[in-house]
Amino acid sequence: MSTYNYKALQNFVNDVFIKMGCPDSQATEAAEVLVNADLRGVDSHGVARLHGYIRLWEEGRINATPEIKIIHETPSTATIDGDKGLGLVVAPFAMRIAMEKAEKVGTGWVSVKNSNHYGIAGHHSMMALEKDMIGWSMTNASPLVSPTFSKERLLGTNPISIAIPTEKQPPYVADFATTTVANGKLEVLKRKNESAPLGWVQDADGKGTTDVDALKKGGSMLPLGGSREHSGHKGYILGSIVDIFSAVLSGANYGPWAPPFVSFLPLKENPVGEGLGHFLGAMRIDAFRPASDFKSHMDNWIKTFRASETTDENDKVLIPGDPEREMSELRKAEGIPLLKPVVKDLSTIGEKFELDFDQYFK
Amino acid sequence: MSTYNYKALQNFVNDVFIKMGCPDSQATEAAEVLVNADLRGVDSHGVARLHGYIRLWEEGRINATPEIKIIHETPSTATIDGDKGLGLVVAPFAMRIAMEKAEKVGTGWVSVKNSNHYGIAGHHSMMALEKDMIGWSMTNASPLVSPTFSKERLLGTNPISIAIPTEKQPPYVADFATTTVANGKLEVLKRKNESAPLGWVQDADGKGTTDVDALKKGGSMLPLGGSREHSGHKGYILGSIVDIFSAVLSGANYGPWAPPFVSFLPLKENPVGEGLGHFLGAMRIDAFRPASDFKSHMDNWIKTFRASETTDENDKVLIPGDPEREMSELRKAEGIPLLKPVVKDLSTIGEKFELDFDQYFK
Repeated sequence: MSTYNYKALQNFVNDVFIKMGCPDSQATEAAEVLVNADLRGVDSHGVARLHGYIRLWEEGRINATPEIKIIHETPSTATIDGDKGLGLVVAPFAMRIAMEKAEKVGTGWVSVKNSNHYGIAGHHSMMALEKDMIGWSMTNASPLVSPTFSKERLLGTNPISIAIPTEKQPPYVADFATTTVANGKLEVLKRKNESAPLGWVQDADGKGTTDVDALKKGGSMLPLGGSREHSGHKGYILGSIVDIFSAVLSGANYGPWAPPFVSFLPLKENPVGEGLGHFLGAMRIDAFRPASDFKSHMDNWIKTFRASETTDENDKVLIPGDPEREMSELRKAEGIPLLKPVVKDLSTIGEKFELDFDQYFK
Repeated sequence: MSTYNYKALQNFVNDVFIKMGCPDSQATEAAEVLVNADLRGVDSHGVARLHGYIRLWEEGRINATPEIKIIHETPSTATIDGDKGLGLVVAPFAMRIAMEKAEKVGTGWVSVKNSNHYGIAGHHSMMALEKDMIGWSMTNASPLVSPTFSKERLLGTNPISIAIPTEKQPPYVADFATTTVANGKLEVLKRKNESAPLGWVQDADGKGTTDVDALKKGGSMLPLGGSREHSGHKGYILGSIVDIFSAVLSGANYGPWAPPFVSFLPLKENPVGEGLGHFLGAMRIDAFRPASDFKSHMDNWIKTFRASETTDENDKVLIPGDPEREMSELRKAEGIPLLKPVVKDLSTIGEKFELDFDQYFK
């Protein structure tokens, strides 16, 4: 597997978005968000998905020149119409509004409609860190998850990210799908020709299965927790809260109406809202206590947990964000490894837009 | 098992709190919160715990006449010092502040320190419903939970409740511990002389066990998700977020320093903050879109999920809050069933305060 310089990769993605007609600043930001997924090791949400955004643009579901605007607001809240813009730029726009509101009244909360896939949740929540704010980011997603007891696909993997500032320790960055596993893990197993552990997916009849292709055969993913005995209903609750905050609050499509990003699901008729929804938030930590007090206690919290005695001496207690940050440092230095099919896919995209993919890395 | 009229039970609890020296209005509210747990079927958090509050009061850890006050605020936030008051009254006080702030600027967020056990999380979040607000409620709790890979007890069952208004459907009320199961479920199994499924608890060496007494032998509860393969680390993330919002943000004790409510854990020395912490929030739904639009879509959301096809025709997809509401209606009508040891415990408490428990039900 060859590795690719992340800045060169970002330049290529930027130029693709420019060719799609995106304004310069939006293309730059979208490329940065997308490649940040590859840097952080969330390969399923990075450049491997570029063709998906292009497909939605070709289908008229993504608008390259959106007029993103606030349609409703109070001092601490706003609702934003993404005008079908790339979720990769709509979400940072919304996050900046949340941060401006937090600057003025302590916290800011923004619900977004008429958007689409926004990349990794953690990119947006982390925008708050440099302002000494806690950042929140959630989105609904392609309906592939069944609520507990159901065999219908009514929810997405609906991730939640919360980023929390620290003093000397690296920041605490939670970023997780509300399912047992993210879709990307199934794709990884498939490439390795392995089966999935029970508790990850069920087949179209609602029976547990180890088939990594179950989703393409009408099956569904299970909410975090898995079976009822192990409280899978709590994962269903988490996913539904993300759905409601992202889509019912904003006026986007919720539940089974969430417009799918994956190509094997059709767009549902009779939408109940506009596009996909997100929910972003920013909380100034000094709206609760002096920032330096909070941050030094966060450092102590992290050190306490990191030093915790483990069951197996080869394991260590991880702090949310540790693995992604380490991966990001590594890949910034050594390049991003891309699978051959992904490279081929990017070359084909390049040809479509008269861009020579290989040229970017010379 | 005999049943007890909930209003009479509330009167008894009220009189106990009066005897402890609580002001009338605080005694009334505390009794209402405590008995609401019994009404909603969360028996482990109801009158069965009354003796626990009395023990903390006797130890000087609960102040019957607190001066609860705001110590820091912005238009959308506040930090509250509970002055060691009963969590049962400190939390509703904080929730009212959150709602007042939401009334003015759209949302209100309150972090609380120097408190203690606040009853069921859902009582406080539900206070927001009548104002057409979404209510949030979280608290940290007795350290009995190990983060993924650890055998140390660094977190509590740290529940999250979110209550969301609806139009004609009953409200959506999520209220769940961020562990595989709440402590109370272990107590229920113990009473039945049954063992726990694997994935609920581990022993003092960090090995999975079915022993329902594991916690009293140095063992710990597992975060939602259970094993690493089934994403137990996400439960650890959820529990840690509750801990940070409730305690690091407010200046309460976090992690292993959270002051325990259970009598078998000692109070840790060298506290890092004051008392236990909570986090309450209120969001006006018309701060995002007209309330009637939101509520009618919530009704549609609920109807869609409720009507979902199930794997087993004897099951149905539950909406968060359904079981507790049904239980509450039943128990309001037919009385609250109390186990003999609980009745005996209440009678003993009555004797201590010169109150005749039986007299309340004649």
